[in-house]
Amino acid sequence: MLSETVHLDGHIIDSGTLSKVLDLILLHGGDYEITSFQIGTTREAASHAEIVVRAGTEVVLQQILQELGQHGANPVAHDAEWTAAPADGVFPSEFYSTTNLESYVRHNGQWLPIEQIEMDCGVTLVERADGPHALTMPVHRIRKDDQVLVHETAVKVVVAPRKDPVSVFGFMSSEVSAERPKELSVAAVAEGMIVTRREGKKVLFVGGPAIIHTGAGKYLEALIAGGWIDVLFAGNALATHDIEAALLGTSLGVKLSTGVPMATGHNHHLRAINAIRAAGSIRAAVLDGVLTTGVMHACVTHGVDFVLAGSIRDDGPLPDVITNTVTAQDEMRARVPGVGLAIMVATTLHSVATGNLLPATVRIICVDNNTDTITKLMDRGTRQAFGLVTDCQFFLKELAARLEGRSAT
Amino acid sequence: MLSETVHLDGHIIDSGTLSKVLDLILLHGGDYEITSFQIGTTREAASHAEIVVRAGTEVVLQQILQELGQHGANPVAHDAEWTAAPADGVFPSEFYSTTNLESYVRHNGQWLPIEQIEMDCGVTLVERADGPHALTMPVHRIRKDDQVLVHETAVKVVVAPRKDPVSVFGFMSSEVSAERPKELSVAAVAEGMIVTRREGKKVLFVGGPAIIHTGAGKYLEALIAGGWIDVLFAGNALATHDIEAALLGTSLGVKLSTGVPMATGHNHHLRAINAIRAAGSIRAAVLDGVLTTGVMHACVTHGVDFVLAGSIRDDGPLPDVITNTVTAQDEMRARVPGVGLAIMVATTLHSVATGNLLPATVRIICVDNNTDTITKLMDRGTRQAFGLVTDCQFFLKELAARLEGRSAT
Amino acid sequence: MLSETVHLDGHIIDSGTLSKVLDLILLHGGDYEITSFQIGTTREAASHAEIVVRAGTEVVLQQILQELGQHGANPVAHDAEWTAAPADGVFPSEFYSTTNLESYVRHNGQWLPIEQIEMDCGVTLVERADGPHALTMPVHRIRKDDQVLVHETAVKVVVAPRKDPVSVFGFMSSEVSAERPKELSVAAVAEGMIVTRREGKKVLFVGGPAIIHTGAGKYLEALIAGGWIDVLFAGNALATHDIEAALLGTSLGVKLSTGVPMATGHNHHLRAINAIRAAGSIRAAVLDGVLTTGVMHACVTHGVDFVLAGSIRDDGPLPDVITNTVTAQDEMRARVPGVGLAIMVATTLHSVATGNLLPATVRIICVDNNTDTITKLMDRGTRQAFGLVTDCQFFLKELAARLEGRSAT
Amino acid sequence: MLSETVHLDGHIIDSGTLSKVLDLILLHGGDYEITSFQIGTTREAASHAEIVVRAGTEVVLQQILQELGQHGANPVAHDAEWTAAPADGVFPSEFYSTTNLESYVRHNGQWLPIEQIEMDCGVTLVERADGPHALTMPVHRIRKDDQVLVHETAVKVVVAPRKDPVSVFGFMSSEVSAERPKELSVAAVAEGMIVTRREGKKVLFVGGPAIIHTGAGKYLEALIAGGWIDVLFAGNALATHDIEAALLGTSLGVKLSTGVPMATGHNHHLRAINAIRAAGSIRAAVLDGVLTTGVMHACVTHGVDFVLAGSIRDDGPLPDVITNTVTAQDEMRARVPGVGLAIMVATTLHSVATGNLLPATVRIICVDNNTDTITKLMDRGTRQAFGLVTDCQFFLKELAARLEGRSAT
Repeated sequence: MLSETVHLDGHIIDSGTLSKVLDLILLHGGDYEITSFQIGTTREAASHAEIVVRAGTEVVLQQILQELGQHGANPVAHDAEWTAAPADGVFPSEFYSTTNLESYVRHNGQWLPIEQIEMDCGVTLVERADGPHALTMPVHRIRKDDQVLVHETAVKVVVAPRKDPVSVFGFMSSEVSAERPKELSVAAVAEGMIVTRREGKKVLFVGGPAIIHTGAGKYLEALIAGGWIDVLFAGNALATHDIEAALLGTSLGVKLSTGVPMATGHNHHLRAINAIRAAGSIRAAVLDGVLTTGVMHACVTHGVDFVLAGSIRDDGPLPDVITNTVTAQDEMRARVPGVGLAIMVATTLHSVATGNLLPATVRIICVDNNTDTITKLMDRGTRQAFGLVTDCQFFLKELAARLEGRSAT
Repeated sequence: MLSETVHLDGHIIDSGTLSKVLDLILLHGGDYEITSFQIGTTREAASHAEIVVRAGTEVVLQQILQELGQHGANPVAHDAEWTAAPADGVFPSEFYSTTNLESYVRHNGQWLPIEQIEMDCGVTLVERADGPHALTMPVHRIRKDDQVLVHETAVKVVVAPRKDPVSVFGFMSSEVSAERPKELSVAAVAEGMIVTRREGKKVLFVGGPAIIHTGAGKYLEALIAGGWIDVLFAGNALATHDIEAALLGTSLGVKLSTGVPMATGHNHHLRAINAIRAAGSIRAAVLDGVLTTGVMHACVTHGVDFVLAGSIRDDGPLPDVITNTVTAQDEMRARVPGVGLAIMVATTLHSVATGNLLPATVRIICVDNNTDTITKLMDRGTRQAFGLVTDCQFFLKELAARLEGRSAT
Repeated sequence: MLSETVHLDGHIIDSGTLSKVLDLILLHGGDYEITSFQIGTTREAASHAEIVVRAGTEVVLQQILQELGQHGANPVAHDAEWTAAPADGVFPSEFYSTTNLESYVRHNGQWLPIEQIEMDCGVTLVERADGPHALTMPVHRIRKDDQVLVHETAVKVVVAPRKDPVSVFGFMSSEVSAERPKELSVAAVAEGMIVTRREGKKVLFVGGPAIIHTGAGKYLEALIAGGWIDVLFAGNALATHDIEAALLGTSLGVKLSTGVPMATGHNHHLRAINAIRAAGSIRAAVLDGVLTTGVMHACVTHGVDFVLAGSIRDDGPLPDVITNTVTAQDEMRARVPGVGLAIMVATTLHSVATGNLLPATVRIICVDNNTDTITKLMDRGTRQAFGLVTDCQFFLKELAARLEGRSAT
Repeated sequence: MLSETVHLDGHIIDSGTLSKVLDLILLHGGDYEITSFQIGTTREAASHAEIVVRAGTEVVLQQILQELGQHGANPVAHDAEWTAAPADGVFPSEFYSTTNLESYVRHNGQWLPIEQIEMDCGVTLVERADGPHALTMPVHRIRKDDQVLVHETAVKVVVAPRKDPVSVFGFMSSEVSAERPKELSVAAVAEGMIVTRREGKKVLFVGGPAIIHTGAGKYLEALIAGGWIDVLFAGNALATHDIEAALLGTSLGVKLSTGVPMATGHNHHLRAINAIRAAGSIRAAVLDGVLTTGVMHACVTHGVDFVLAGSIRDDGPLPDVITNTVTAQDEMRARVPGVGLAIMVATTLHSVATGNLLPATVRIICVDNNTDTITKLMDRGTRQAFGLVTDCQFFLKELAARLEGRSAT
């Protein structure tokens, strides 16, 4: 029986971390003994545990230790090992794969923060004038001979932040259920936006085309005009149907003022795309006076930064759409620093894609009328998300009403 | 090859009936020839078709003819056959089973209307002072030796009413989709309620407990207080959580004013039930001053008739709940005559149960955040329903806002 | 600041109980200090915590203590108080409301087990020849002057059993997700049935009519014939469509051998019901040779006990259906003792109703193609359920294949 | 009142086309008179209608006529008008937008077929040695001065093919419902594959990663090895998790042989991607002996053509993934000719994207455990799809079993 001692610090009881760590040891075929335990006796105080992990083989033991490291349970640290990347876009085979939790790597006896942390990336070491930096690095950006972190033993992960039951979103259960008072949840989101702004952080909005189809575009437009949104991530569809509504009064060919499908309305979205292609860009269409209202118009006139990421479902697409998906990710990634709150509405694709890029410290509200979208987001590692099962129409109308007259700065 | 000629009259093109009838002949192994056809040349004019139906055997031919009869395609009529019921609660084996479409039976050379039509029942012949009556009869109510209609050949069914594209609900597609402008649909429901009242008909509301859990009880209460609802069908759960909210401020133990689960809140619903059991009934609790607010309180104080039907999921139940399901159906059935519009919100069980009892001429709006509920309702024969995929909270808030200040009479 | 000391024992770390208890104190407005803590240092060893709970008012403190008691954190015990029921079917107002966890009540200085525990009931004290008994009592069964337990302070609840990650179902996450290897889950259910039988316990099957519509009736029939099921809970619909399939070869009028809707098939279910009504009962129809195959036939011929509970959706119903919902619950309740495993397939209504009656120690597998059914079951307190998101057809086919040739005894 | 006469030919009764055309006239504010009608008196015979359309203004009349043209109701034809494209990637503003129905354009007094028809494209005129060709052209491919078809009056659309009730898929209702016998539907798909091959057409398979997560990869692999699939459309996720399974035995980190999450398994997919990036491509990894099993391995060794289209959700991605979404569409588009049957399993994104590219004559089976995917596909114009609501695991297992031992050629 081989063994190794790991340490675990922080709010390990109320975050459920200790319970999870012990489960993982058993689940992966090991056993444990808790050799020391100091419990944080009050709400604010941290706890400390020392756990002897045992396993039958060295391989199993190392795997368990690596797994525990992902939850903040670390053996005594050694300095990290770094290996040169064998080729452009390829990690060395033993590369360390990041989580979205705040992390540190041991280098020259000190803990370097891993910068702009994001899940499913590697870590490279860069020497700069101010000393060494450990950078989060997606695999497509690695270059031959970059120094890449290998193995997990020299990494320290900070325990997942708990979902504080007395915080602004505290009452929104992490369990996803449609049977909750909805107006209160929207009020909490409004409050969260105000708090985020007060903290000097950015609000990111991620949206799908159902916002336009259901007639809620005007509420999103009002939020943008009110200065509540710093960055918009969306796809060709949201922008296209918004512009279709602005130019032709329809969305998916359905007249928004009557709900009646219009004659030849099914090709309206293509006419809208063609009009913007003719103008050269959304911004050019606004400046030319072609586009005079709607969500995208509001982004341009209120200086809200947006990324329209392409998908194979797109017609056209609009000239502003970034058709290369890796480039689109990089553009989204570049806008993540400074984001304090992400609101994701009615889009599985863009929600999961954005969730992939956000550190665990960014608060996320995911709104969908289908619980599956929210489950999928969490299944893919974005566990900090709060789910709100409701119509995007209702959500945006309520949110806009609650923020009306409040100051966004 | 055996054949029989059937006739088909009415809006058989624009309702899709002719297309359906021809499909059914092929589907069930027959073939056809259209021997005469006069098309209604304008929107108002009816069409007429004469179709020779052919099949290889007499059995197949008769089955096809019976099926066609359900869609209004009938051979030349003979007088109906009536057979005595063999025992209480049992039909003769060849009984005619009703649809929910307006129907007539041939008796003494005349077409008797089948009264209070409802799907999946039998038909009995009763002689009264004013002559013979053909009554729709659920199987549990039949008594030994009642005269029960057998075979289908003497029944004439009026072609299903089309969903008129220019009516008040016309723009609401019969296809169920979440991607439609929602506020317009709610506006149409409001308009439909006003029109129903103007026609001197009743509005029936069928609701589930999510109305209370999501905090929408106050909007339903406002509709009742405003005089917009004539009859309420619900179960123990809606009434219990409404009363829990009225007595203890919670629903499913979650405080409605804050969204936070209350200490020991999970037993609040049982305390609410017990309080009403102690009072004797909901009405008694209102009169005693125990129950002073909420949906059920509004029903009592505004004289709105309600049926609370029991289910095996119920705790308690409340003393007003009809625990016998057949009795509950009969109570619901007794309130169907005069209903012009049924609004079904957030309940599969009660929606399907009510749909079973309504003739096809009653307009139905079914609101649920899950398309499956609406699909199920239609799969079970209630094809006249319009589906609206949205939150009950949003729906009721919008509906109450739109009807505020309008006169209910 | 008022305070009280509670004790918490057992697997309070790995079950997450300690974490939950601390959260609840904060959530309900209190604060805490952990004054003593002995951690169970190995997998088998229990832990012990002593927690001082503080709150600003006596009311808040008492509410927190009551809530904590539901999770096994109890102050030093006093003897219980019992109060006479004020009327038939009514509890005294301060009645103790049960959870589905193993519980004890302090009486004459000793811990009496609360017998046949079930959520949302009261507790009565009965003196028998062998001494006092504390019985779980649904409100409708209480009689005037029965001695009913009031307040929570004298009740001890055993900490919720953890979902052991190395048990037979351990790998089935308590989180509900459709993205899991399905065949393995079915294999685990088969193994669970074998283990349950080996432990001398009963297997309860709860099923909905989709089993028949999707063509899976033959697999359920095989399980019954193989001796794998001890009790069946279902409704009128499952039995009716099963009998429709046996008598007429269709389900909901769709021919099961071809998938094609049959001419006049939509009234087949009513003909099936009428045939059984004519025979008098399902058993009589089997004995008379009217019913010769199917699920219900298998129940009769293999002596499997069944309860068919009525609902307001029912046509007919079959003579075996218990139309009084409270009586139906009592019949279901009477079959709970001895059940070790409950398998719930494709029915929200019957699953939630059965979940209400089962103690937390009965293992539950809930199979549905809709995650909402499983979420609803857990939301209503049946937290021990494992969810399997899949088709009932697939589940039953796989399960029958895996158990074929295995011995059921 | 302005008027114009249109003609409508074909199976306009049983396809529902006539009914739809009359509805559209009313819906868009016009009126009609049927001035001549010859009904096809037998199953095989076509019908003919002459309809006078009336509207209050010229604009409304033209819109109605354009809409009717999309359903095959055309006024007497004139030669088409063609206008030069104003710039690369931009249509002239009055461009004709295609449907996915077989279409012809009037040119020099003759009907030219519009080649490789696809919805939401333009049409260009090209002169070749063998004469003029009308080509379907996506907007991004248009070049300045290309001759682009404008207005709709010179286009003839062939009436939508009806869903024949006696064809191989005939019994699969166009209505989406989970409550149907599932094994029969799978049998029909197997039969459809055999028929497609017999007709000398290709089978296209479109799949999502849930195929791998649920453990169904081996069945898809068997279909490919058996020669049943000609082309595979998928994304990075399906290929990645398949390769993860091949290299590491897990999918999303869950061990497929046990269902248990593996230690550090959550980074397995990234290790799989990195291994293929190191090899250079999937094909290279197969040739190098790195990749020796799985779906992608089977594609390489059995010469099955595949397109892996990128999305912003992707990690990595694999080197074979086409990261430019417009290029990916073009690669998919290039493989459409010759496809007779498309089977879409467990992916909304790729199903809708593929549906966009297929002419209405390609039969489509869409399999998903969520009805919403199927609804979305149809809402976006792919109306010929048959939906099958079931688990991909079940579907593929059954399908592979049914085709085992059958000859794929």
